[in-house]
Amino acid sequence: MRYLAVIIYDGSNFYGFQRLKNKRSVQQELEKVLSILAKKDVAVKGAGRTDAGVHAKGQAIHFDLDIPVTPSKLKYVMNRMLPEDIRVLEIKEVDNKFHARLRATGKWYRYVIKISEFDPFYAKYTYQIDDELDIKLMEKASKKLIGKHDFHNFTAGYRDDYEGNIFKIEIKKEEDKIIFDFYGKGFYRYMVRNLIGTLLMIGKKKWNESILEELLNKDIDKTVPTVPACGLYLMKVYYQD
Amino acid sequence: MRYLAVIIYDGSNFYGFQRLKNKRSVQQELEKVLSILAKKDVAVKGAGRTDAGVHAKGQAIHFDLDIPVTPSKLKYVMNRMLPEDIRVLEIKEVDNKFHARLRATGKWYRYVIKISEFDPFYAKYTYQIDDELDIKLMEKASKKLIGKHDFHNFTAGYRDDYEGNIFKIEIKKEEDKIIFDFYGKGFYRYMVRNLIGTLLMIGKKKWNESILEELLNKDIDKTVPTVPACGLYLMKVYYQD
Repeated sequence: MRYLAVIIYDGSNFYGFQRLKNKRSVQQELEKVLSILAKKDVAVKGAGRTDAGVHAKGQAIHFDLDIPVTPSKLKYVMNRMLPEDIRVLEIKEVDNKFHARLRATGKWYRYVIKISEFDPFYAKYTYQIDDELDIKLMEKASKKLIGKHDFHNFTAGYRDDYEGNIFKIEIKKEEDKIIFDFYGKGFYRYMVRNLIGTLLMIGKKKWNESILEELLNKDIDKTVPTVPACGLYLMKVYYQD
Repeated sequence: MRYLAVIIYDGSNFYGFQRLKNKRSVQQELEKVLSILAKKDVAVKGAGRTDAGVHAKGQAIHFDLDIPVTPSKLKYVMNRMLPEDIRVLEIKEVDNKFHARLRATGKWYRYVIKISEFDPFYAKYTYQIDDELDIKLMEKASKKLIGKHDFHNFTAGYRDDYEGNIFKIEIKKEEDKIIFDFYGKGFYRYMVRNLIGTLLMIGKKKWNESILEELLNKDIDKTVPTVPACGLYLMKVYYQD
């Protein structure tokens, strides 16, 4: 039986989602629990990797498990066995061709900035700065990112193609926080953190929004600032139904 | 020159306030920074110890430092040098007989309980339970704790005298959290956590509030439950002026 699960994790003490030798990862903790239940190795596939320190409020995974258990009982048992920084929110049975990454139709990422004196209680959960940010300028610039673009200047890697599609960007202020919501498909490594880094340069009036035309140009190579992992949350993975 | 500083720390990654050999402590991190600035050993005295995992939003400390620096500059420099889980909120010069512990006229401790499905993002910052709690019953019982009492059943140790004085207890519900505020003088080790453990037994209707008369009786020895450190915050230390 194949299962789809929605999970939440505090990324502070993980070297990211993906299994790495001798490093603590979310995938490894999930596989450890499922392999105990199955009494054999169980592989977990995520909808996407998250880097070290990045959090998830709605990561999706799939795995195969052939033990007689209902989804709600399985959720209960996994949550009793998992470490305190990972929890399963939801489990359901899916067809045995379902694939958490390949079937995803989009993702929602959130980035949280806190503008105040540095607060230790938010150190791992927001990016704290004390700059003045012009939200209107960032919002106006963010419109240029909507749609299909070549995002090679916003990622790290050596692929031929970095086409992504951003459906929507929302920027809002809530008390001393500025929250950036990105909805789209085709997010590459560091892409959200580099897009935020670029928008911040615009919001601080160090860069003009016209820089975006250059950065989205397939034939121009430029480097942009990457904001820290701690402010980033994978909020939701979307599927057709 | 003697200084009083108010500090805040996320206790998650400390073995408590007090210096311990080969363990990370708040006191040691503060002394490390001040000793670099003074170019000699500087001792830091706290208004009280906090145990491993206990947080502070307003711990008070004093120390002597003889370098030409204003309090605001000293705060700035310390905050640049301290690790991200400790910050100085306030510094002022005090008379050279000032003592953070001996001069304190009282303290405010807060304990935060979260009643919901277990949330990894609150694992180190609240005590998460899913029991039904009768707040009215706990409030009524808490009145019996007000005033001077012998708290030997609420602490760990072998002193002759455990007299403490609780000025006020407030219990309030905020969304899915229950917040307990204790104001008083003479808090012993585990005392707040044991008082909360006792109030929870009453709130769950497992114990009747009449148990408090036994527990506050100098001649009766009884054991009470201790709630986890992660929900406890030292909010403020009070001084005469």
